[in-house]
Amino acid sequence: MMRTFPYQVLYKFCHDIFAAAGVEENCACAVTDSLMDAELTGVHTHGLIRLPIYIQRIQAGVVSPENHIRIVREGPSTLVVDAGNSFGAPSTAFAMNACIQKAEKTGACFATVRASNHFGTASFFARMAAKHDMIGFCCTNVTGKIVPYGGSKPYMGTNPFSVAIPTADESLPFVLDMTPTVVSLGKLILAQKQGKEIPLGWALDENGKPTTDPAAGRRGSLVPIAGPKGSGLAMAVELLCGVLSGAGCGPYLHDLYSFDEPQGIGHFVGAIAVAGFMDPSDFKAKASQMLQEIKRIKPAEGFREVMIPGERGAREAAARKKEGISLSEELCEELNELGRPYGIAL
Amino acid sequence: MMRTFPYQVLYKFCHDIFAAAGVEENCACAVTDSLMDAELTGVHTHGLIRLPIYIQRIQAGVVSPENHIRIVREGPSTLVVDAGNSFGAPSTAFAMNACIQKAEKTGACFATVRASNHFGTASFFARMAAKHDMIGFCCTNVTGKIVPYGGSKPYMGTNPFSVAIPTADESLPFVLDMTPTVVSLGKLILAQKQGKEIPLGWALDENGKPTTDPAAGRRGSLVPIAGPKGSGLAMAVELLCGVLSGAGCGPYLHDLYSFDEPQGIGHFVGAIAVAGFMDPSDFKAKASQMLQEIKRIKPAEGFREVMIPGERGAREAAARKKEGISLSEELCEELNELGRPYGIAL
Repeated sequence: MMRTFPYQVLYKFCHDIFAAAGVEENCACAVTDSLMDAELTGVHTHGLIRLPIYIQRIQAGVVSPENHIRIVREGPSTLVVDAGNSFGAPSTAFAMNACIQKAEKTGACFATVRASNHFGTASFFARMAAKHDMIGFCCTNVTGKIVPYGGSKPYMGTNPFSVAIPTADESLPFVLDMTPTVVSLGKLILAQKQGKEIPLGWALDENGKPTTDPAAGRRGSLVPIAGPKGSGLAMAVELLCGVLSGAGCGPYLHDLYSFDEPQGIGHFVGAIAVAGFMDPSDFKAKASQMLQEIKRIKPAEGFREVMIPGERGAREAAARKKEGISLSEELCEELNELGRPYGIAL
Repeated sequence: MMRTFPYQVLYKFCHDIFAAAGVEENCACAVTDSLMDAELTGVHTHGLIRLPIYIQRIQAGVVSPENHIRIVREGPSTLVVDAGNSFGAPSTAFAMNACIQKAEKTGACFATVRASNHFGTASFFARMAAKHDMIGFCCTNVTGKIVPYGGSKPYMGTNPFSVAIPTADESLPFVLDMTPTVVSLGKLILAQKQGKEIPLGWALDENGKPTTDPAAGRRGSLVPIAGPKGSGLAMAVELLCGVLSGAGCGPYLHDLYSFDEPQGIGHFVGAIAVAGFMDPSDFKAKASQMLQEIKRIKPAEGFREVMIPGERGAREAAARKKEGISLSEELCEELNELGRPYGIAL
């Protein structure tokens, strides 16, 4: 059973819970924007399903409800942001907005964020730049789960990164958002729940041997895409988000679902202004032309159409704004349970 | 049979051939630097084996021996370079050096290069930034050979990209240099020569069907790594190098081995100064610490050690400088044939 709600209703519910839990207003809006954007674009794993753990972390005192986000170092095209242990979304949105402002003047700006927490989807922040006719970049490190190529134990986080590039259609930018793993941890969890084996090549067990047992894979590590390539991508993100930010690397971070300490993760974001290179309208027209040429390629067997990165999410967002967002009965109950102490219900 | 030469001997030979073919001195040095760096780091596919085609393109009038490389647009942190149909290496080295200079002031700078040609390895240019305590980025587009995910015909080039990050050991930066394809075209060429089948998943035939026939794969397209991920990476590089530079996209470019026209390809490079974020010595010490922790992970079965991206090339370079560089008798003959009209011999 699913229940369907207008976007605005869920947005208000989510925001009001954060506000009632004592989260400072700017932070409450930013974290709600991030979670609700994930719901809109169909990335439900990063949507309202995360609201309970976010609130529990506030209640456990491992995320700060206050807004102590601040710039600790800056140059014409660089920024270092200390998140002050806020949720990841407010500090990352702050950093990206500051990058956009600086890039308006210099043409490019990059920022690190440290002392931060789970920020939702990377593409949410990369897309902010695309709205300003800039190329947006965003990545984050998280707890170490990826095995380096040739190794037997995990080190790097499942470090996602996103690149967003504006096109002639503002609602349809090019948006790449990927982890450097063959599959997400979620696929192992699902297989384990369903009592199914996983294909060889997804995960290694605790001894570094390829496994078909999802439980063994969860205790072990995830395999990077294309061997040394995915492994190298995960390390590069770790160097930018964990070392350059001063945050800390994969094995030293704390999981979203453990309550011992702040996560302590880092992010790296940037904006490069198209106007530094060519007239933005001209660029966007030519980018759209290239992507349309790719879309016109005859699909391979088993495919209905060639999809451009970001297209599925943009279509989903348009549909969800019209038709509303469906939540499982189970999630609705969990959310109402969460709202009960504050007198907030769906 | 192999013949071994000191690095300096091959460098001088390569440079003198370019000079004798009329290539302007700065360009001759830059293109020799690039080809010889590939030889040193063990990427022989991008080394002296390319010298004959480079010279033939000068002789055929499709690459300019003159130096008309110039900045056509610039901001505090952006640059547009017109290569004037020079070899790719001189214009890309010029663009990267200009980025490094600007990044010294602003903290970051990115450049596009257009009207260019084959530039060698992407990592050569990314590593230039790492030597200046900067994070280097470099990518290029080339003739369209990658099939978009879900499609049946190629569009994007085998667009390599490289990220170089400085460490405490200047001779051993972190260097990722990858194409978004499962294998390079070279592996198909080799399999065809040896009369071997290729595994499913490497290439599609002309009709977009997976094939084990290397000849059919060469007429068809190369498969991106990890489906939509590699496909999206290739498109992102195409948008930066082909569209943002004003150069042109995969299907509209000309192959290194066809003599009809200049290649017309584009590059995108950038440098981000570590000093904008933290003290570079501190960063490099911490980056090395992280990479050493990764190296200390117990190798998986079948591996002798965990290798860091860039490590193999750095080791190879150290060995080649001491022991010299070996070329096949066949290549030596070809190179001597090339030098004969100019009175230059190995």
